[in-house]
This record gives sequence, structure tokens and C-alpha cells, in this order.
Amino acid sequence: MNHVNAFLKDSKTRVELVLDQVLPPITHRPTTLHEAMRYSMMAGGKRLRPALCYAAFEDCGGQGDAADWGASALEMVHTFSLIHDDLPCMDDDDFRRGIPTCHKKFGEAMAVLAGDALSILAFQVLARSGNAQAVTILAEALGSDGMLGGQVVDIESEGKPCTLETVDYIHVHKTSALIEASLELGSVLAGANAEQRKLYRDYGRAIGLAFQIVDDILDIESSTEALGKDVGSDIENQKATYPAVVGLEESKKQARILVDRAVEFAGRMGPRSAVLADLARFIVERGN
Amino acid sequence: MNHVNAFLKDSKTRVELVLDQVLPPITHRPTTLHEAMRYSMMAGGKRLRPALCYAAFEDCGGQGDAADWGASALEMVHTFSLIHDDLPCMDDDDFRRGIPTCHKKFGEAMAVLAGDALSILAFQVLARSGNAQAVTILAEALGSDGMLGGQVVDIESEGKPCTLETVDYIHVHKTSALIEASLELGSVLAGANAEQRKLYRDYGRAIGLAFQIVDDILDIESSTEALGKDVGSDIENQKATYPAVVGLEESKKQARILVDRAVEFAGRMGPRSAVLADLARFIVERGN
Repeated sequence: MNHVNAFLKDSKTRVELVLDQVLPPITHRPTTLHEAMRYSMMAGGKRLRPALCYAAFEDCGGQGDAADWGASALEMVHTFSLIHDDLPCMDDDDFRRGIPTCHKKFGEAMAVLAGDALSILAFQVLARSGNAQAVTILAEALGSDGMLGGQVVDIESEGKPCTLETVDYIHVHKTSALIEASLELGSVLAGANAEQRKLYRDYGRAIGLAFQIVDDILDIESSTEALGKDVGSDIENQKATYPAVVGLEESKKQARILVDRAVEFAGRMGPRSAVLADLARFIVERGN
Repeated sequence: MNHVNAFLKDSKTRVELVLDQVLPPITHRPTTLHEAMRYSMMAGGKRLRPALCYAAFEDCGGQGDAADWGASALEMVHTFSLIHDDLPCMDDDDFRRGIPTCHKKFGEAMAVLAGDALSILAFQVLARSGNAQAVTILAEALGSDGMLGGQVVDIESEGKPCTLETVDYIHVHKTSALIEASLELGSVLAGANAEQRKLYRDYGRAIGLAFQIVDDILDIESSTEALGKDVGSDIENQKATYPAVVGLEESKKQARILVDRAVEFAGRMGPRSAVLADLARFIVERGN
């Protein structure tokens, strides 16, 4: 797994340099907004979505800086979703990535606006690729039939008995959609055709779902200290999770099956095949 | 002014047909989110930004349906901004366009998400034009150096003594930016060159600023009933407005000067010159 850690580290360094360039400086008016945007963007995180975008881009033989626009846009929309999810009217979380959430630090109004601004900046930066199709992919993954749809069903399912079908809907929309898009964006920005794109999407669907199931498991088995965010909140809020519906052991089994499937998809890929296979394995092993 | 009313009516009919097609049906999951999106989108309004987009598009000799993507995207991002502006952590308004605001009807979480989803759908729809430059124009107008920047400075200026420079910053960013973009989008989607685009931007800047000054004036002189939203809230909230800084009479004079300037710009335009001149005049005369 050493090359996965090296790949994640390199991707993180690369996307953080791009982010530092595309985020407005905190000296630029309105300074509070730009400070809030940078505060949440630069709070760390694995930068998994950018890494997946870079991996798919390289796997498809992409050249130049087009993947930088995709990778930085993905991390901005991911952070936008975290800032809004953490709001008092949503999950009401106080900590994220080990530090106070955006609204705890800057107030609710600024957190709403910082999230909005990051989402919009993502499209602005992605449009630099000159590729309108890339904009379509990101928007579809985020919208009411993607991530936001998953978030709504997640909220509406709280405290109610839940079926596996609903948990799948939530996970596929709230988490997988953006992970699928990370891979598809990387391939599209490298000029991949429709058939190639499908392979990356299939791989993304598998690791995205596995990622969220592992997240559900970590919320039960990990500690606030290790994770840098509140844990145990899923049970407390009666959230729709895999362990709640199928139990802890079956959840672990499903995550392993999904990762095996992803590894199989990765086997059909190009020069980054080995890294993509190990990125899939990394997802179930993190936090353990 | 009869042809302006006819033009506004035709544009409104046209963009509402497009909106009905691009907004997901309320039968589509998650139904509450789609209901909230349609509730705020279909609550009426003058549809001024779509009208400006259509006018510029036609003035530049544009053909086909490209302007429909621009016009519907503009109305969606405008509504997104209203939904978020009305939130309790922002302006905390209960009524908009004569009916309860989105969060009063659907709750805060759903209002945040409906705004997010409309903003994202706008980029999705605009990308159908295949024009990445159009995406850039919309994103720049909305972002932290555009509309959202104006919103932040507006919030931060509440209850404080305010300079004309700051009021200008707020109005140009919070209101003019999107109106300028409406005109520039129309011209770009019609294939206009950089010089033409500048003319529409200049016209848009003038009418955008006039529009917001008139809005400030109406907040003092009109009634809740006539306007369909809370009035008098600017004074109550000690908002940064033109009348607060330069007085009511000087504000009216400035609005007239700006409209005269816009009419002059319109005089240099093409076949829609007369409509664009009258749209500028319409802006100062509405509500009087």
C-alpha cells in the first residue's frame, strides 16, 4: 500500500497548490467570506476525490493541467456540502476535521454564503477546462438527483424505520455520486470515450458505496479523537445507515464485496490500474 | 411602453415554459425538495433577468434555443439568492412575492438545500448550450467577487455608518453583477464578440445600479401589499441604502441619470434597441 500513500500524498500536495491559487486571497474584499472559504478548504482532509480524478486522468493518458481544474472543483464542492451539512438546521455538528465547523467559527450566515461561494467557484474553475461536458457531469452529480437528493432523503429518514432500498438510495446519491463524478471527470478531461467513462463510473459506484458503509461502521467503532469529528451521532440521531439496517458484520461483508468488485474493475484499466485497485482497498482499511 | 410590457410578457411565458421543462417534476424523488424548488420558482416575479437575456440575444441576431438555457439559468440563480437571503440567519423575511418564503413553508434545511439545488441546476442547464464561456460569465457574476460578495458586505454593513463607496460596492455586486451577466450571457450565446459584449455589460451596469436604487426607494415609499414583500425593513435593519447615504431626492436623481446613460448605450445597439431603452425606463417607473 506504500504507493497508494505516496499517490495520495502527491495528489494532496498538488491540489492544495491549485486551491491556494484559485481561492481568492483573504486580503481581497469581502475578507471575512474569503477567510471562511479558506478556513474550511484548508482544514485538511484526505483529498480523496482529487486523487481519484488525477488517477483516472493519468490512467486515460491525460496530459497538461486540465485535471487540476477538475480536482480542485471536486474538493470545493465536497467542502461546500460539508459546510452546509454541518449547519444547525441540518446535522448541527460542532467539529469537522478536528477543528470547529465553519458556522461555529464564522456564524451561520457566513457559513451558508461560504458554502454557496465554494460551489460557484467550483464551476468557475471547472469551466477553465473549456469543457462544457465536465460542467454537466459535476452538476448532475451534485444536484437534486445526485448528492443533494441523497442529503434530503437522509434528513427525511432520520428517526424512522428504514429499508435497505432507502439506505442504498441515500448512500448512492449522497456519497457515491460525487466519487463517481471524480473518476468520470478525470477520464473526460483526458479525452476518454463513453465506454471508458462507464468503466470509471462503475468502479466509482463500487468504491463510493463501500466508502459510505465504512463511514457508517467507523461512526460506531471509532473515536472522536481518531476521526476528528463527532462520532456516535448516527445512532443518537437515528440515521439511516447500513449497520442499522443489516447489522455490523453484514455491513463489513458488503463493504468487502464492493471493494473486490472495484478491484476487478481496476484490473481492466490502464497504467494506473494498480494504484486504483489499492485506492479501493485503502477505503475499507482506513481507520482500522 | 406598450411594447416593453408585451416583451416582458412574452419573455415571461417563454422562460416559464422552459423552467417547467427543466425543473424536476414533484413526483420525482426527493419529492419535498422538488416541491420546494418549484414553489419558489413558480411564485411569479417579473422575470426581468430572462427578459434582458432574450433581448440581448435577439439584438445580436441569435437564433435557436441557446438563450433559453441562459434565461432559465438566470432565473434559477436569482431565486436561489432570494431563498438564501430570506433565511432566518440572513434577512429573516417571512414573505416574498406575496407568499410565505421557502423556509417558512418548507423549513430551514429544505430552503438551504432548495437554494443549493437551484444554483447547481442552473449550471447544469447552462452547460447544455455547450458554451463553457457562458458558465464562466454566470459563475463570476454570482461568486465571492460578485453577487455573494455584495451580500456579505451588505450583512456586515448593517447597523453601521456607511459611505457611498460601500453602498456602491454592495449594489454593484449584489444586484448589478447578475443583471450585467444577463445581458452578456444573451450576447455570448448569440455569438457576440468582446466589443459587443462590453456594450451590453455597460448598459447592464447602469440599469442594475438604477434598479437597486429604485428598490431602496420603494422600500421607503411603497407598501407591503403593493410590493408583495416586507417593506420598511431596510430602515428597521439599518441597511446600507442610497437614501440612507445621499437622501431620497438625490437617490431619485441618480436613478434617473443612470437610466439616461443606459438609454444612450441602448441607442448604439441593434434591432432590439428600442425595447432595451424602454426596459431601462421601465426600471425606474415600476411601482410608481
